[in-house]
Parts: sequence; C-alpha cells; structure tokens
Amino acid sequence: MIEDNQAYLLALGQQAKQASYALANLTGSQKQQLLAAIAAKLIAKSDVIVAANKIDVANAREQGLSDAMIDRLLLDNVRLAAVIADIDNVIRLADPVGAELESQLLDNGLRLSRRRVPLGVIGVIYEARPNVTVDIAVLALKTGNAVILRGGKETLQSNLALSDAIREAISEQGLPIDAVQLIQSPDRALVTGLLKLDCYIDMIVPRGGQHLQRLCAEQATIPVILGGIGICHLYADKDANIDKAIEVIVNAKVQRPTVCNALDTLLVHQDIAEEILPSLYLKAQSLGVSFYTCERAAKIAKGINVDVEPATDETYGQEWLSLVLGIKVVDDIDQAITHIRQYSSGHSEGILTDNIHSSATFVNQVDASAVYVNASTRFTDGGQFGLGAEVAVSTQKLHARGPMGLEALTTYKWIGVGDYTVRA
Amino acid sequence: MIEDNQAYLLALGQQAKQASYALANLTGSQKQQLLAAIAAKLIAKSDVIVAANKIDVANAREQGLSDAMIDRLLLDNVRLAAVIADIDNVIRLADPVGAELESQLLDNGLRLSRRRVPLGVIGVIYEARPNVTVDIAVLALKTGNAVILRGGKETLQSNLALSDAIREAISEQGLPIDAVQLIQSPDRALVTGLLKLDCYIDMIVPRGGQHLQRLCAEQATIPVILGGIGICHLYADKDANIDKAIEVIVNAKVQRPTVCNALDTLLVHQDIAEEILPSLYLKAQSLGVSFYTCERAAKIAKGINVDVEPATDETYGQEWLSLVLGIKVVDDIDQAITHIRQYSSGHSEGILTDNIHSSATFVNQVDASAVYVNASTRFTDGGQFGLGAEVAVSTQKLHARGPMGLEALTTYKWIGVGDYTVRA
Repeated sequence: MIEDNQAYLLALGQQAKQASYALANLTGSQKQQLLAAIAAKLIAKSDVIVAANKIDVANAREQGLSDAMIDRLLLDNVRLAAVIADIDNVIRLADPVGAELESQLLDNGLRLSRRRVPLGVIGVIYEARPNVTVDIAVLALKTGNAVILRGGKETLQSNLALSDAIREAISEQGLPIDAVQLIQSPDRALVTGLLKLDCYIDMIVPRGGQHLQRLCAEQATIPVILGGIGICHLYADKDANIDKAIEVIVNAKVQRPTVCNALDTLLVHQDIAEEILPSLYLKAQSLGVSFYTCERAAKIAKGINVDVEPATDETYGQEWLSLVLGIKVVDDIDQAITHIRQYSSGHSEGILTDNIHSSATFVNQVDASAVYVNASTRFTDGGQFGLGAEVAVSTQKLHARGPMGLEALTTYKWIGVGDYTVRA
Repeated sequence: MIEDNQAYLLALGQQAKQASYALANLTGSQKQQLLAAIAAKLIAKSDVIVAANKIDVANAREQGLSDAMIDRLLLDNVRLAAVIADIDNVIRLADPVGAELESQLLDNGLRLSRRRVPLGVIGVIYEARPNVTVDIAVLALKTGNAVILRGGKETLQSNLALSDAIREAISEQGLPIDAVQLIQSPDRALVTGLLKLDCYIDMIVPRGGQHLQRLCAEQATIPVILGGIGICHLYADKDANIDKAIEVIVNAKVQRPTVCNALDTLLVHQDIAEEILPSLYLKAQSLGVSFYTCERAAKIAKGINVDVEPATDETYGQEWLSLVLGIKVVDDIDQAITHIRQYSSGHSEGILTDNIHSSATFVNQVDASAVYVNASTRFTDGGQFGLGAEVAVSTQKLHARGPMGLEALTTYKWIGVGDYTVRA
C-alpha cells in the first residue's frame, strides 16, 4: 500500500511537471481562451456537479457534521454560478508572466535580464470548500502553472466532478490534461507523501487550519507558504479619537467574525480605558460580542454590569473566528507592542491614534504582513488590496507576504545574452 | 544533554529575535557606522584572529585533512585583510530597507504601501571557510537582521575569534550584542535543532554541499534557501559558430573549475559534432581536462587518439567541481532540453547558437536560475550580476533565485493608513 502510494504520487508529479512545460509557453490569449473553455464546461456540467455535491451533503448529514460545516461544503446552482462568474474576472486580470523586471547591459557586454516565469507545479491542500478546486485551478493556469489538488474528504464527490470538467476542457483545448490533477484517495498518507515530492512540486500552499499548517511546516521538503491564521490586534492609543476608534474596533470584530483578518484582541492605553471601554462594551455586546479581559478591563465592565470572562495566556493566543473579543488595558505603546510580539500570528495589526509619533513607532516596530494606522484589520484581503484574486494570505516572510495575487504564483529567471562572451 | 541543547537554542533564538527589533529601526548611517566599527575591530584584533586560525590549521593537519581543505580554512594576514576590505564595499552599497515598493490610494481612502523591511533573524549553516563568518554577519547587519551562525568544526577557533571581535564592536556601538551569535558546540544535534527554531528564525541559508542541503530540506520547519549546487550544461547548437563556441565551452570549464557555475556537461548537436569535438578535445585536454562521453562522442575522440571514459546516468548527474567534462551528442535541441531537464540542478544553463529561434526555444523551455545565450555559465555570480554582494546562489524558485544580494535578506510589509476607515 505504501509503495503503491509512492508510485501514484511519483506519477502525479511527473505528469504535472511534464504538463507544466507546455503551460509555461502559452501566450496570454491562449490562457484566456483556456479559462473561458473551463467556464463554459462548468456551465455545461452544472447539473452533474450539483448532483455530486448533493452526495457530499448527504454523506455529511449522515456523519452528523454541523450545519455550519455543511453550509461550507454546499455547492448549489447559485453558488456554482458565482464561482464560474469569478473565472471571468481572472480572465480579465493582467498576465504577469513574461514581464522583464529589469534589464541591464553589463560592462562585459552581457545583456542581463530578469524575466517573470511560472513557478512550475503547485500543490494545494485544502479543506471543506469545493469552490477552492475551481479558484486555484484557474489561478494556476492563468499563470502557466500545473497544479496538484488535494481537497477535503467531505467534498470528494464535488471536487471530482469539478476537476473532471476542468480536465475535459483542458484536453479539448489540445493541452495536457494533467495540468490539473486531483488526488482522489482520502488516504492521509498521500498528504505526507505529497509534501515530500520536491523533485516535481515547486511550492505547497496549505489552505486550512493550524493543524494542517503545522503538518506542512514539519513534513514538507518543498517550500511551503504558511498563512491564513490571524490572531489580530488593534491598539487604541491614548491619543485615539474615542468615537471613531469604537467604530473601527466594532467593524474589525463584527463585520465578518469568521475570517482570519477579524479582530481578536483589543489593547487599550490606560489613559483612555475608562472613557472608551464602557461605550465599546455596550455597543459590542448589543451586536452579540462576548469578552475575555484583563483585570483592569474587567473592573470597568463590572461598573456597567457587563459580564466578562478572565483572559489568560491561552485566550490571548486564540484566533476566535467568532463574536468573541479579548481586551487588555496596557500601560503604554511599548507594552502594547510587546503583547503583539508575543501573541501575534503576523497577519494584521493596527493602531488607532491621532499622534504621528505613536503611529510611526507602531508601524516600524510591529512585524506583521499588514500593519494599519486608523483602519480596520478587515482590509487584509486580495480583493481589497486590488490584487484581483487571492491565492492565500501568507503570514510568513519569504516569497510572498500578506494577500497573494497572481505574482505569487510566479518566479523569475535570469537571462544572459552575450556574443560568445567569456568570463575574464 | 538533549534538553540542554533545546534550552541553549531557545535562548539563542530569543536573544536574536530581541536584537532584531533594535536592528530593524537603525538608519542607513547607523548601520554604516556599525560596519565601519566592525572593520576597525577586526583590524585591531587581527593578531588574535590569525593566531586562532593557526590552531585550526594545526588541528586540521593533525587530523590528516587534505591540502586543499587546509587551504580553504586558512586565514592569514593577507586573506584577513581582504575580508576586512570587503566590508568597505558593503558599507558603500545602497541600503534596500525602507524603500516603498509601491503605494496606492484605494477607493475607500486607505493609503496602501508595501515597504521593504528586514527579514528579522537569519540562520546560516556553513562549512570550512572562516571568511563566511564575517561576510554573512556584515550582510545581515547591513540589512538590519540578526544572525545565528553555525560554522564548520574545522574552523571553530577562527570563527570564535572573528565573532568575538564582531560582537565587541556591536556592543561598543550601544547595540544588542546578540545581533550576531555563533553556535560554539560542535554537537551535530544543534544543527537539527536550529532548523526547527521557527518561532524565532525567519530564514535558513545552508552554504555547503549536497548533504547539508538535503538535511536542511528534510529537517527544517523554517523556510530554507537551497542552492549552490550547479550541474551546469552548455548546448552547442547546429548553428553555433564553432570557433567561438569552443572559446566559451573552455572558459566555462577551466576558468575556475572548483565552483558551482563551472560547466559540467556539454551537449553537442549531431550535425556539428564531427566539426567541433576534435578541436575541443585537443584544446581542453591540453588544459588538463578529462572526459566522460556518450558513444558517439567517444568514437570521435578515438579518431584523434583522445582517451575518454564512458558517460553513465551517474556521471551525467555529477557536479564535477574539477577539470572533468561530460560530453553527449544529441539529435536536436529537443533532446538537449530533455537531457537538461533530467539532470540540471537548476543553476546555470546555456545555448551556443547563431539561430534566433533555437535561442528563444532554449531560453523559454529551460527552467534554471540563469539561462544564457552565447555566454559562459561562469557569469552566475553576485559580483558579475552587479549585486555588489552575494549571500548565496539560490537554485530554488521561491523568494530569491540565482545570486542573492542584499534584497534577498529583506521582506516587505503592507502598511495601510486610513482615517478611522472601516470595511463596508
């Protein structure tokens, strides 16, 4: 069985690498045509896809998955139409491949350029949402990459129907069908095996929770883009505009609490705690928010009869993904920065202040993919940042940081053109 | 012992991270001043350093290391002076930190910028050459990074003397001494432990052979920059200028055969094999080159009484680092590209041709950090590419590819400045 897995993965890898050579040489128009053909095929096969999804949903119900989980894996005609419509947006995006980032004539006569090229083969491991199958395949193909997909077992039937349609469209365009491959077996050993296929795969993108991210960091011999975990902070400085600060804090917490850029912990300067916290507690509570707070913040809550739970090391290190907010009163900006350095996942951090010095200190000293001044953490998003697409949100520092657009699926090569030039 | 190692590494990591916060906020002038102070200190301590190196050399002789190896670890007054002089070059390089790569005003009023910042903490694992201790420390500090160094056990005394001097200079500048730390114990378990310190180290750069590269790829939970292994090819196309092609091939092979960008295998189009190979064999042989060849090339060698060994799968996969050349006659450019795809380490590959179509095909289809047309592979080098410095030569595709200059020691952060801006 283990040998079988190994042979299966090596074949997948080899086929993907071979397909990537053809993809790397497509023109922008050819890739647009390919994506349009995929969109058309998905429309033509909508019934098959929605029927496959119904099997996944039925299985999920049988296995007692939560309603939230079932909602996540649901792909009805309306949602599928939206996924397909998004392909048109990707078609319209500028193709980053082929651009020369710089070009210089060296003293020895060599013309040296740096040209943007596809990465080659991308492996993507993801969980419940079947739309990822289409999103990632389309973004990979747009940038001339082959992709190996490994979705969650809860959406296997949906993913199979989707990838079959995509592959059929690729093949009908006269392109290598293995440009998109889906791992079909639910065997978990295939994930570990995939992570070690460094002879064929150039980058792994895990789109899932903490457990998947750690597995990839620990097992992969291929470069991995970690991300998507956001333990996000806002620091309300002593010089913050109280009313406006409350607006931003509430927006960051409640506008969409289930996503990675939602606020997790509010840090409040002690000088404004008495002024800002009562209104904030009441407003947030009225919107369904509950609180884990330090003792100073708890005392203020008690004064206005708001119930809070005590914050701990563990709650400060929690990505809530729900209507829960941590609150801590800090002595000064340095203590706020120290807290963030300890608990941040490097995703999105912000300061609320009217003071130019505090703003500069915060921006310079806080190390995260996105640092905000007087803005909601909710802006960390490929769409909001104008990238046109989002492969993932990277919280690591190499290759891509923060929202990853099409460029994050490319690399560059140096091209040196001489006239039979030798090194002296 | 294992617990002790863990505690030791955690302390190293924590100290480095703490130091990195201070370094990240230095101005360009402050960093120039720091490097100048390090150069001055190394000059002042030259006797101590050279004396320490003599111990390493004596130990190496006692342990029967080869003359080549001993030459590599030797640091006499002349070589040390050259290492110190190089610091002046680094001082004069432009500081990449702080530049804004782009800045846009989003429709919602948020000013969004991408600012270049230091990576944070860099771990570097290297082998025999003690100059790396200074080179890497200086490049890391120039870009505002802290660094943890792990040199070879053969140069431990030299590395200790060098790092002591550097740390003294750092401290005298009022900066955190742990900006540069050297792992002092030769215990190999410390390398594996270092590779898993992802809570503190942002990037690992292994500078050493295949074994070290694999160890890092397999064990690290931190992003690793693999590189420095060059199995380099030149393809002499049917439309190559024979005489000029021979010049380039000989240059790529003999100009400095011990380095990663030296030529390993020559691929020759069958139409020109009879014409180019006899002259090439004789010229290369007169310069001390020996050959592993395919049967067709062997037959031509036999005709002019040049001895060759038979090439095998293994010899084609070899990085020679010496005056050995693999030769294979190919049917056409496609076969050349297929051979390169199979055996290349993704370092430096080149075509020799006067044909614009062959040139374009080769450049587009060969996937390597540097691809050349009518030029020696020997150009793949930070100095030659005008980067001013070379941290390493990356053969992977993420973050940095090919010669890595100062920018490869930086990342970026997104900075969003609003007016208490919320997401709609």
